[in-house]
Amino acid sequence: MFSAETYINRRKELIKNVGSGIYLFLGNQEAPMNYTDNTYRYRQDSTFLYFFGLNIPGLAALIDADKNEVTLFGNDYTLNDVVWMGPQESLRNLASLVGIQSILPFNDLFKKVKSETQFLPAYRGDNKILLSELLGLKVSELKPSEKLTKAVIKLRSIKEPQELEAMTKAVNISGEMHMAVKGALKAGVYEYEMVAKIMEKLHSKHAELSYPVICSTNGQYLHNHNHSQKCEAGKILLLDTGAEMELGYAGDITRSFAVSGSFSTKQQEIYDTVLNIENSVIELLKPGVSYLEMHKYANKLMLNNLKEIGLLKGDMSEAQELGLGGMFMPHGLGHMIGLDVHDMEDLNENWVGYADDQVRSTQLGLRSLRLAKNLEAGMVLTVEPGIYFVPGLIADFKSQDWTHAFVNYSKLESYADFGGIRLEDNVAITESSFTVLGDAIEK
Amino acid sequence: MFSAETYINRRKELIKNVGSGIYLFLGNQEAPMNYTDNTYRYRQDSTFLYFFGLNIPGLAALIDADKNEVTLFGNDYTLNDVVWMGPQESLRNLASLVGIQSILPFNDLFKKVKSETQFLPAYRGDNKILLSELLGLKVSELKPSEKLTKAVIKLRSIKEPQELEAMTKAVNISGEMHMAVKGALKAGVYEYEMVAKIMEKLHSKHAELSYPVICSTNGQYLHNHNHSQKCEAGKILLLDTGAEMELGYAGDITRSFAVSGSFSTKQQEIYDTVLNIENSVIELLKPGVSYLEMHKYANKLMLNNLKEIGLLKGDMSEAQELGLGGMFMPHGLGHMIGLDVHDMEDLNENWVGYADDQVRSTQLGLRSLRLAKNLEAGMVLTVEPGIYFVPGLIADFKSQDWTHAFVNYSKLESYADFGGIRLEDNVAITESSFTVLGDAIEK
Repeated sequence: MFSAETYINRRKELIKNVGSGIYLFLGNQEAPMNYTDNTYRYRQDSTFLYFFGLNIPGLAALIDADKNEVTLFGNDYTLNDVVWMGPQESLRNLASLVGIQSILPFNDLFKKVKSETQFLPAYRGDNKILLSELLGLKVSELKPSEKLTKAVIKLRSIKEPQELEAMTKAVNISGEMHMAVKGALKAGVYEYEMVAKIMEKLHSKHAELSYPVICSTNGQYLHNHNHSQKCEAGKILLLDTGAEMELGYAGDITRSFAVSGSFSTKQQEIYDTVLNIENSVIELLKPGVSYLEMHKYANKLMLNNLKEIGLLKGDMSEAQELGLGGMFMPHGLGHMIGLDVHDMEDLNENWVGYADDQVRSTQLGLRSLRLAKNLEAGMVLTVEPGIYFVPGLIADFKSQDWTHAFVNYSKLESYADFGGIRLEDNVAITESSFTVLGDAIEK
Repeated sequence: MFSAETYINRRKELIKNVGSGIYLFLGNQEAPMNYTDNTYRYRQDSTFLYFFGLNIPGLAALIDADKNEVTLFGNDYTLNDVVWMGPQESLRNLASLVGIQSILPFNDLFKKVKSETQFLPAYRGDNKILLSELLGLKVSELKPSEKLTKAVIKLRSIKEPQELEAMTKAVNISGEMHMAVKGALKAGVYEYEMVAKIMEKLHSKHAELSYPVICSTNGQYLHNHNHSQKCEAGKILLLDTGAEMELGYAGDITRSFAVSGSFSTKQQEIYDTVLNIENSVIELLKPGVSYLEMHKYANKLMLNNLKEIGLLKGDMSEAQELGLGGMFMPHGLGHMIGLDVHDMEDLNENWVGYADDQVRSTQLGLRSLRLAKNLEAGMVLTVEPGIYFVPGLIADFKSQDWTHAFVNYSKLESYADFGGIRLEDNVAITESSFTVLGDAIEK
């Protein structure tokens, strides 16, 4: 964890931003897999980590802004626990590590939480139930505090140097995971065998996954977590994977590898297009730049390049206006990243990524853009353009008459089994420019 | 999955056992890690797998015993889903694979579930909330059906040949995970590097963990999932890890390795004792044998052996009666295993492991015995004796006067940093005897 001063300062800033009131923060409990005691790996809530630093289950905290008082709720381990788990730190010692002097048993929350206590949105069932019991409301009646939530988003959006350092480490491990796959990839291996290489590298660094691995020769399906396919010669393996370490900060890296070691001319054209988009966008990043405009710029570059290749025709500005970009890149250009891979997505995706006066588009692709705000120094975000040939999506566009003025569908047919290519890096916004986090990962 | 007939027959048997009424089964949803869409690996509920076979989220089922009718509740994928996830089977086709003709949208559950509908205990927050909404009760007011729960336990306790086959595969992969560690273990490696070897082997077989890895040179702490220690020469690495494959059946294997490749005389004495206990117990297993008696027999062998080594003295029967066994083996001899590593622990640990007329002991060690019933053909269980030297526990016993008649505390002091040794295999009860599942795993 960071120094006690780090957490004390963050809580002071929060009070400054929210003002009068009592704020409640629930840590995460263990998450049951197939019965209560058979749990998934423990993952603390990110906002709890940010303000209270303690990476163990069974905790909650209250900040009383008016009394300037912070209380940690939790139970000390019993002798029995110690026999089963080995010597453990006392709650008092743990609390002092993060600058908290006041501790109470966990169930005292029931005495201290009042109907006017402010709280954040809950995403796990057990914490929803706890909130409902603490507040005497049905789960569906719980109303998280907009003021508190927006203040947390404001603080967490701007990363401290020590956070950038932690993220850099996560990115470097993520890069090694990619290189482990690159070193083992050849025609005939199964996707899950490549996942095995990722997991070995990850755990040899004492790290965990920051999100489920995407490792697929069907990279055109964006949410495809199936790893059962054989990697055939001539195909592209799309690999989107990242690590997090004990502090919780995520890496999120994507590379696209030729299974046989080298791309065909057709693949190379698309790869170069994606690489050019990524580099062109990154070069422009600095405070004040609108990420919404960057998404549009990426789309423009993509459509123009696809026209040069001969897949598209006509006026590309017009095509873009009509939404043709979503046909080849149905996702957003990137998102903020930090303690969560999609940073703070539990709090409110639109509050995180959109200014109050920005209305989210309903157009395919643009509607999936998670970050549209003007950039500020200290933000960290992903830049992840991709080009995909999704049979179902192509069929859907083909059924719309207007697209025939822009798409050479006869040429496009030969891309039916192309798959998809995406490249993704994590970029920090500096005072006047940008830094791509971590050591260069081969592209 | 198994054949449609398998699931049809299991449901018929269930109806035969429970009788009149409507039974509700909730499948598991995706489990959020740090926000709703960043999920842990998907794990279906084991009872849902047993009766309905479908290993995907978003499902529930109702069995109407009186009408002999089974209905699957779920939603078909939309075009949008297909774009993101690739082509998917229709719900109707999936249902027919497991012998179900009647399907309804998921939310129709709200029309079909009545206050008298029988259901099983829920262990995940989201399913508790769903039950509470379906039944119009607070989470704390939910009353699972004892009759239904006991009938499910009765059926799942006796494994079919095809289940034994699946478990054998899981055990074999678990064995390979152990051998991967054995091959890489040497003084100076970190425990997490050994976990990396486990994860590589596991995923290269397209399998998942059936429970969190225990891989520790502090094996005396039984629930120790920390992997940060360096493996020092002269220490023992206790490795308790198992795999599950797509069908969900678990392996659960423990070995104890000398970090330096060979045990000291002191370690070998304890190792041989544990091995002798394991072998002696396994040889006795057959239908009709009480596993409670087996636990006591294991304790007796252990105490007698420790007396031979010179750590104990006096009348070992008396010592056992007084509970000295728990000092060195504070856990139970084993548990049933199947679709869950502690099979059906979500349903009710005592109903699974104890006959109605068996009262669970409160004595350390014996009170943690999960299986005390008389064995039946088709049961599968773990045999996992262990001997540990837990400083906190030794101090606790030493503070009790009666123990000084039985324990040579001066000699015991030299075992302070010994750690612990456990051996565990998975054993199926046959018509007249037993089968240790899987290929032999080096001991």
